[in-house]
Amino acid sequence: MSTVKLLEDHELSPQANAVFEDIRATRQTDYVNNFWRSLAHDPVTLKRTWESLKSVMGPGSLSPKMKEMIYIAVSVAHGCDYCIHSHTASARGKGMTEEEYHELLAIVGMAAETNRLATALGIPVDAIYKV
Amino acid sequence: MSTVKLLEDHELSPQANAVFEDIRATRQTDYVNNFWRSLAHDPVTLKRTWESLKSVMGPGSLSPKMKEMIYIAVSVAHGCDYCIHSHTASARGKGMTEEEYHELLAIVGMAAETNRLATALGIPVDAIYKV
Amino acid sequence: MSTVKLLEDHELSPQANAVFEDIRATRQTDYVNNFWRSLAHDPVTLKRTWESLKSVMGPGSLSPKMKEMIYIAVSVAHGCDYCIHSHTASARGKGMTEEEYHELLAIVGMAAETNRLATALGIPVDAIYKV
Amino acid sequence: MSTVKLLEDHELSPQANAVFEDIRATRQTDYVNNFWRSLAHDPVTLKRTWESLKSVMGPGSLSPKMKEMIYIAVSVAHGCDYCIHSHTASARGKGMTEEEYHELLAIVGMAAETNRLATALGIPVDAIYKV
Amino acid sequence: MSTVKLLEDHELSPQANAVFEDIRATRQTDYVNNFWRSLAHDPVTLKRTWESLKSVMGPGSLSPKMKEMIYIAVSVAHGCDYCIHSHTASARGKGMTEEEYHELLAIVGMAAETNRLATALGIPVDAIYKV
Amino acid sequence: MSTVKLLEDHELSPQANAVFEDIRATRQTDYVNNFWRSLAHDPVTLKRTWESLKSVMGPGSLSPKMKEMIYIAVSVAHGCDYCIHSHTASARGKGMTEEEYHELLAIVGMAAETNRLATALGIPVDAIYKV
Repeated sequence: MSTVKLLEDHELSPQANAVFEDIRATRQTDYVNNFWRSLAHDPVTLKRTWESLKSVMGPGSLSPKMKEMIYIAVSVAHGCDYCIHSHTASARGKGMTEEEYHELLAIVGMAAETNRLATALGIPVDAIYKV
Repeated sequence: MSTVKLLEDHELSPQANAVFEDIRATRQTDYVNNFWRSLAHDPVTLKRTWESLKSVMGPGSLSPKMKEMIYIAVSVAHGCDYCIHSHTASARGKGMTEEEYHELLAIVGMAAETNRLATALGIPVDAIYKV
Repeated sequence: MSTVKLLEDHELSPQANAVFEDIRATRQTDYVNNFWRSLAHDPVTLKRTWESLKSVMGPGSLSPKMKEMIYIAVSVAHGCDYCIHSHTASARGKGMTEEEYHELLAIVGMAAETNRLATALGIPVDAIYKV
Repeated sequence: MSTVKLLEDHELSPQANAVFEDIRATRQTDYVNNFWRSLAHDPVTLKRTWESLKSVMGPGSLSPKMKEMIYIAVSVAHGCDYCIHSHTASARGKGMTEEEYHELLAIVGMAAETNRLATALGIPVDAIYKV
Repeated sequence: MSTVKLLEDHELSPQANAVFEDIRATRQTDYVNNFWRSLAHDPVTLKRTWESLKSVMGPGSLSPKMKEMIYIAVSVAHGCDYCIHSHTASARGKGMTEEEYHELLAIVGMAAETNRLATALGIPVDAIYKV
Repeated sequence: MSTVKLLEDHELSPQANAVFEDIRATRQTDYVNNFWRSLAHDPVTLKRTWESLKSVMGPGSLSPKMKEMIYIAVSVAHGCDYCIHSHTASARGKGMTEEEYHELLAIVGMAAETNRLATALGIPVDAIYKV
């Protein structure tokens, strides 16, 4: 259940439509997923978010697959169901194997466990970790 | 400020000491960081946690560096200061460049932003993401 | 899927019914939403929670609309789907425009991003922010 | 304890310096806070984050004070100590009274409580909240 | 909507099947819940997670009922819908009364509220709490 | 670093002082911890929070020790350093043994791990858990 209507192509403002065209061109697919159809009510945020995402997830030192896997990790820790599903699909689309996926999940779970233990115990950061 | 005393080597139970010896042998360093010195009050949890961590972070499909970077991402999302510092240091020790580190942070921040937007809007998961 | 049955009016204890009557009188509507129908199994918590909410969300320095918008922001950050929907509806009922709603979401997303960046970097609080 | 050095003015790259100049001009103060001095290691993220923040927190339907108060609410829910202090200072600088501040805190606390109750009970969203 | 298929008994690898047999023997029921059917794609994580859970939730100083109630509290704070439902059912199965359940929820809600207030105010830890 | 001054006894308003007197009488100690000294700037929230806490943590089905342990669990999951330290001290004061404390931590860590695994996998809730 969403708090705004998902906008269909014919309901887009010209500014939103321009962003959708760039999404299509960048991803080389006609499909625009629901995230953008919700954000399209606010063309300024739509444009800013898409351009940030395109920059952050674009070519760099880390591979596209690794970027998506980090995105999944954060989305799990924040409990965002939509993001978990969309980025798990993207990571698979960019070559994440099932073996890599299960390693990712094991790390996420392990980190959650030690994060909570360290927080509970109020452990002081070791001096050797100091920059 | 911690909720238990950090145990020094001469205060360890034999079971805890055995785990410390394995930590030293595995990491090839005499240094045992504060996380384990806090957990050492409970040798059963110490042993189970160390063995799980050794397994999860050990050789696999993902590189040691990538595993540490995923660990950082989760630790940031959980706000665990200790874990952020220890795993950032580990990732650098395993070859994470500053360029990779900044890409990681940009992804973590971006994911946090879109996670909250998607949650706020209650966006339905697209059918194409269905397994 | 809920962990307790939603109570209908004829299933309420006298103490729970008294709270429902106050909810109806305060909000000037016969409709009592599911949150209270779940809490009604525990009339003490029902009464305490309703009275706290009535006090906190009642007249004060901040407008009713702004109070609901802050409530949405917190609910998003906690990932509470029920609360997001009920308070988004309330905020709209108290005059939140779609423009204000989209500004709210943009702030929530932006804050999430910079929150995680600041936490990741372990940035020390500037002395000028000291009270 | 931070994971990167805070950069001083003479250590900035030209791109980072240009962002600092815009921060100073926009805020009409020579002081640039630690958040930007940490981010300055990555001029691309620095520039993107500052421009997004300037846009999101700039003139709009909501007052600058209200925007800062929403920012505080999110920062509290995410447990970002740096952000809590910097945005509480900003909100006061933009006119938040102590009375308004205490109302804000009361709402944040109340929302946290009902968020967790609603999540624990798995309460279904009422049909009347449907868009 | 899940990211992996739930495995049925005839789809299990021999290693996963061995874990399922231990789950059945330990719990004295033929029913194996969806959590394990999802994890079964990765027999190493399945085995490690089950053995850790069996150890942590097994006989100790705290009663099985209390252990499940603590598990519920954590699951609510992390917003894990699956875990909330499965552990609420387990706690009831181990004797949690409805009165105890409602006390648990009241504590979880109250803690959430004071957690956020203390974080917002940046309250320094009292010296008397020092170990 | 806090966002408000901790109030000393001679700085309290009469309404805040009355709450402090009740805290002292209820706890049978002259010591009033920093949490209340921060909240005392807002006597209405101070009084409401104290009375709610007194009710929730007062006599009931669960022992005072168990109530404090649940409080710790929630505080850890929310990353509230102040609350972790104050409630760990309280739990010890109410008889929590070190063995019980370590069992608590192990459960909190384990729950964090399985919470994130279940969320990542999007596991559907089993029909048998339905109320």
